[in-house]
Amino acid sequence: MNNAQPIGVFDSGIGGMTVVRALIRLLPYENIVYFGDTARVPYGPKSPQVVREYALQDTDVLLQHDVKFIVTACNTVSAVALDIVQKRAKIPVVGVILPGAEAAVQTSKKKRIGVIGTLGTIFSNAYTNAIRQLDPNVQVFGQPCPLFVPLAEEGWIDHKATELIAKEYLFPLTLKKIDTLVLGCTHYPILRNVINKVLQDSVTLIDSGEATAVVVKKMLAELNLENTSKLKPNLQFYVSDVPHKFAEIGERFLGTKLGKVHRVEGFLS
Amino acid sequence: MNNAQPIGVFDSGIGGMTVVRALIRLLPYENIVYFGDTARVPYGPKSPQVVREYALQDTDVLLQHDVKFIVTACNTVSAVALDIVQKRAKIPVVGVILPGAEAAVQTSKKKRIGVIGTLGTIFSNAYTNAIRQLDPNVQVFGQPCPLFVPLAEEGWIDHKATELIAKEYLFPLTLKKIDTLVLGCTHYPILRNVINKVLQDSVTLIDSGEATAVVVKKMLAELNLENTSKLKPNLQFYVSDVPHKFAEIGERFLGTKLGKVHRVEGFLS
Repeated sequence: MNNAQPIGVFDSGIGGMTVVRALIRLLPYENIVYFGDTARVPYGPKSPQVVREYALQDTDVLLQHDVKFIVTACNTVSAVALDIVQKRAKIPVVGVILPGAEAAVQTSKKKRIGVIGTLGTIFSNAYTNAIRQLDPNVQVFGQPCPLFVPLAEEGWIDHKATELIAKEYLFPLTLKKIDTLVLGCTHYPILRNVINKVLQDSVTLIDSGEATAVVVKKMLAELNLENTSKLKPNLQFYVSDVPHKFAEIGERFLGTKLGKVHRVEGFLS
Repeated sequence: MNNAQPIGVFDSGIGGMTVVRALIRLLPYENIVYFGDTARVPYGPKSPQVVREYALQDTDVLLQHDVKFIVTACNTVSAVALDIVQKRAKIPVVGVILPGAEAAVQTSKKKRIGVIGTLGTIFSNAYTNAIRQLDPNVQVFGQPCPLFVPLAEEGWIDHKATELIAKEYLFPLTLKKIDTLVLGCTHYPILRNVINKVLQDSVTLIDSGEATAVVVKKMLAELNLENTSKLKPNLQFYVSDVPHKFAEIGERFLGTKLGKVHRVEGFLS
């Protein structure tokens, strides 16, 4: 293993760019290869069987780029397919569920934690199981928010309609008196302001992507896999399709220009 | 060709069920095979290149069921891939764009027509080109409404947020003084009430699916392909994935119970 090899990150689409942003902040010298399966996004409403099949194909794309470490940035993949990605990759693999769960357990004083995510993530109970394994005394309340992904992709970040939708989704969680809320989907940090507004700052938000970046940094150090070069790293972006508005959305997620985005040819055949 | 062979209908997902509903009303004795590519829905934000590839695979699924006629219920497919579906199928193929365009031209007195649809459909200019070929004096105003598909799939049919979103999308069209609006996406008839409310009944809505069913009936008669049996027809539903809430959504679209929904195995490999 060569320390200059890139970290591979994949997601169902562009949402995982929030994880890339967190990685760049914490690990500014690491080379990164990102793959977004934009031809088949979203994974959230799809069955575990299909998500597992797609996750393996996504893993193979990253392995072709000779990555030293894989981050499954997609919560849905992390919830239902982490085991087979680990089996296929034979290199260290980290999902976003366990880091998010750990951060939430460390944060919650009232031991009442809410989790929002896609239908796939919430129905899998992955966060609930992870949190309760860390602390069986914590109560966990899950809430799917399927419209948050299209709203974030459309950039309706501070629209009145987004606030109404957020109120409807989050109201049941406020009744449960949670003090901590896991943003269990990589798109949701984009809507952080409106979520905060609806919850009136009474709840601490946990960004699973940020928590994951902390874990990746720690593991790279432990495994002695950190890049020793202090040169500007190489960031490469690959997608299975280049949809309308891709560059615009990607910039919003990453908070900076993307440079060239490559389409993985032959991926769909 | 055997007249008892089914009509094949395909869509990116479940939206095409509104077309099936229109077909059943007009052609109550026809056997129908429906395929929804629920593993890769939605097609609307994807590139024409990818949509064309998917459309061919969808066509092959229907051809395996020995269909006598194909309806590409998906507006995005009809807009960017009808030519290759026709080439592959070698049987009569009808899309939803031309029937919708014809109905709109016949309806509009002011010759000012609005078209709403996915990004893919609107950016393709397929409706504009079809309408202006029928009548060069008509002015056409397109408006993508990307959030309508997830809102319809979620069943937020008369929610205040849906109305706000509809107002934002439709306001530019009201400024253009249209008198006719084409619902250029199979999901949109589900939101017909809220669209009517926002437009205050000043605009006639054209459901491309209903217009297509009229054309299919006419073509079957002309080609002498109508089913002569007056027995209860066989309706078969196939999907590439069975997502959460599938049955619930399907019933909402079809207006009746679906019966068994089959998953096409091996379709993703």
